[in-house]
Amino acid sequence: MRKVGIAASGLTEFSKNDSSVESLMLSAIKPIFHETKNLSQNDVDVVLTSTNANNKYLANIISELSGISPRTAHTVESLCNSGTNGIVSAYSYIASGLADVALVVGAEKNDSPGLVLEWDKSRGAYTHPIYWASMFASAHMRRYGTTLEDVAYVGAKNHRNAVDNPYAYFKKMFSIDDIMKSKYLTETLRLLDCSMPCNGAAAILLASDEIIKKFTDAPVWISGIGQKSISAGFTKNEDLTSMKSTVQSSIDAYHMSGKKANNVDVAELHDAFSICEIIELEDLGFAQKGMGTSYVKNLYDNNDKKINPRGGLVGSGHPLGATGIAQTIEIFQQLQGKAKKRQVDRAKTGLVHNMSAAATSSTVLILES
Amino acid sequence: MRKVGIAASGLTEFSKNDSSVESLMLSAIKPIFHETKNLSQNDVDVVLTSTNANNKYLANIISELSGISPRTAHTVESLCNSGTNGIVSAYSYIASGLADVALVVGAEKNDSPGLVLEWDKSRGAYTHPIYWASMFASAHMRRYGTTLEDVAYVGAKNHRNAVDNPYAYFKKMFSIDDIMKSKYLTETLRLLDCSMPCNGAAAILLASDEIIKKFTDAPVWISGIGQKSISAGFTKNEDLTSMKSTVQSSIDAYHMSGKKANNVDVAELHDAFSICEIIELEDLGFAQKGMGTSYVKNLYDNNDKKINPRGGLVGSGHPLGATGIAQTIEIFQQLQGKAKKRQVDRAKTGLVHNMSAAATSSTVLILES
Repeated sequence: MRKVGIAASGLTEFSKNDSSVESLMLSAIKPIFHETKNLSQNDVDVVLTSTNANNKYLANIISELSGISPRTAHTVESLCNSGTNGIVSAYSYIASGLADVALVVGAEKNDSPGLVLEWDKSRGAYTHPIYWASMFASAHMRRYGTTLEDVAYVGAKNHRNAVDNPYAYFKKMFSIDDIMKSKYLTETLRLLDCSMPCNGAAAILLASDEIIKKFTDAPVWISGIGQKSISAGFTKNEDLTSMKSTVQSSIDAYHMSGKKANNVDVAELHDAFSICEIIELEDLGFAQKGMGTSYVKNLYDNNDKKINPRGGLVGSGHPLGATGIAQTIEIFQQLQGKAKKRQVDRAKTGLVHNMSAAATSSTVLILES
Repeated sequence: MRKVGIAASGLTEFSKNDSSVESLMLSAIKPIFHETKNLSQNDVDVVLTSTNANNKYLANIISELSGISPRTAHTVESLCNSGTNGIVSAYSYIASGLADVALVVGAEKNDSPGLVLEWDKSRGAYTHPIYWASMFASAHMRRYGTTLEDVAYVGAKNHRNAVDNPYAYFKKMFSIDDIMKSKYLTETLRLLDCSMPCNGAAAILLASDEIIKKFTDAPVWISGIGQKSISAGFTKNEDLTSMKSTVQSSIDAYHMSGKKANNVDVAELHDAFSICEIIELEDLGFAQKGMGTSYVKNLYDNNDKKINPRGGLVGSGHPLGATGIAQTIEIFQQLQGKAKKRQVDRAKTGLVHNMSAAATSSTVLILES
């Protein structure tokens, strides 16, 4: 298998500014061509678009609008986990030798048809993701004595981190008290525990080890990949204090890379809701089961940016098809030492965790500089 | 790169029988698990769904309904070329070593949102694909003196072939005269020159060379792959007597496989409209430019099933996301010697050609037994 690395990236601001999915994607792609040395449109073999939008033939349209005439062009969709599905697919085209260079661009609008899964209605009338998030929170509270204040630390930390992310939807501190007092959507879930659907795009350029040095002196390698789809139905995840697909994905990604949780210097975790980060810290091996809350408090108290330095989904916003790519870009920048105010010291190994629909499916990537 | 082969397949009838996309997909998957020795749901690492339907998280839903808990699951969309995009993506997961076994299932309904591309409206008010097909026909007529009767031979041949395809939408002979007298939709395009949008599904199982012998004694290998996206806009294809993306895809697929057109024993060509088959025969190297018409007449006169033995899209119907997979299944069965009444003698090497939107993008696959 050929080594595959990340050569370049581009982002738009995550916002409520209305724009078409096409325009968002083009804005994210633009800096890749402007800022990458020796890169021309002719280099790009694969263009994958990641979105829940109903647009058809989007990868071909974006290719044409970008002046690219790729071999392979299609859309990848798997709800909130679309972005890393696109990246893993691009990886496989390059690793297999079918392609040398692949562009993956994700975008979403704040009224995306992926926000509420029609299918959910057939599995217990979950008319909104807040219900599964609320059940995760209740289960963790029952088993480990987690409190609403414990959960509020995730939001306070991630919102504080987002202040240093120029692309974040929120750029505003929220205190523990602000979060404790924000509107209750369910018994165990408040408005400030939720990521915000928004408009945004993210683009990333992958290349084989033979060619990547033409584009960058500081490639970041994808050394571990784990993916798992447990089901489409939340109720198949028997233990609501854990995300089975995340556990399995991390086992595979750690195995492929030869790294473990304690080798990871910086990580992006899919905090669609604050409670998710606590559970994921435990499932990914950063904290013992039931200890995710104290792990987060410790990060907060020490202003440690190791987990979700760009502010997570809670601070940055959540344009579904762009999220997994934006998460990967953050780790790319961290491992290049280019994350500016968000920079984690001596970050050499990073982790990306992206998931869909109550973690019925997950992706875990290990990146190394 | 690891060798990748086709181990098994399943089809539904192509029809107007109303059914959900999920039900269609499950019906196509069912025979794969029923008829493949030693195959269990646990063997499947990747599930890709190919469709233009707006359903979200479909690959995960289909996985759950099929009892599969794959690593990778997502939808692939690239209009009419979605099916072979799914197959090439599955190929790359296996060839790269990320997966051993992949299931690709495509389905479409006759009212698919992929039938008319919104984008077309921004590139000259093509409110329906019949307009680009009509322009292809007019251009070929102008340059090579092709007549409407020449074009009618494609339909007569493919409808005759479809009579022996139990899954075909049409199972009825149409004479040259029937086609000549069918309703004119444009000056150069009649109703019986068109493929029919319909409901249908097709599923195919790919596996690495290490594992495929567990499932079948007669694997069919994917030895050549070519893909090209020229643009999303028909007008970029300067010469309307040729499909630039098809030419480039065939060059790459022939090169990768070491085969040429004259090595191909049987082929599936994307005859969304009858004129397409004539142009594709020329672009793929089966006939000299301008000689596609006499090539087709020769096939017709000799009842030679070499091109579109299952009846092509014109005879079989065109459920968009399923089409490329159904084409590949036909060549799989031909190379296994299991195509029954449609069987082409001593077929060892086959070709699949699948395209989207006026051949603005194409895929060519070379298969070998």
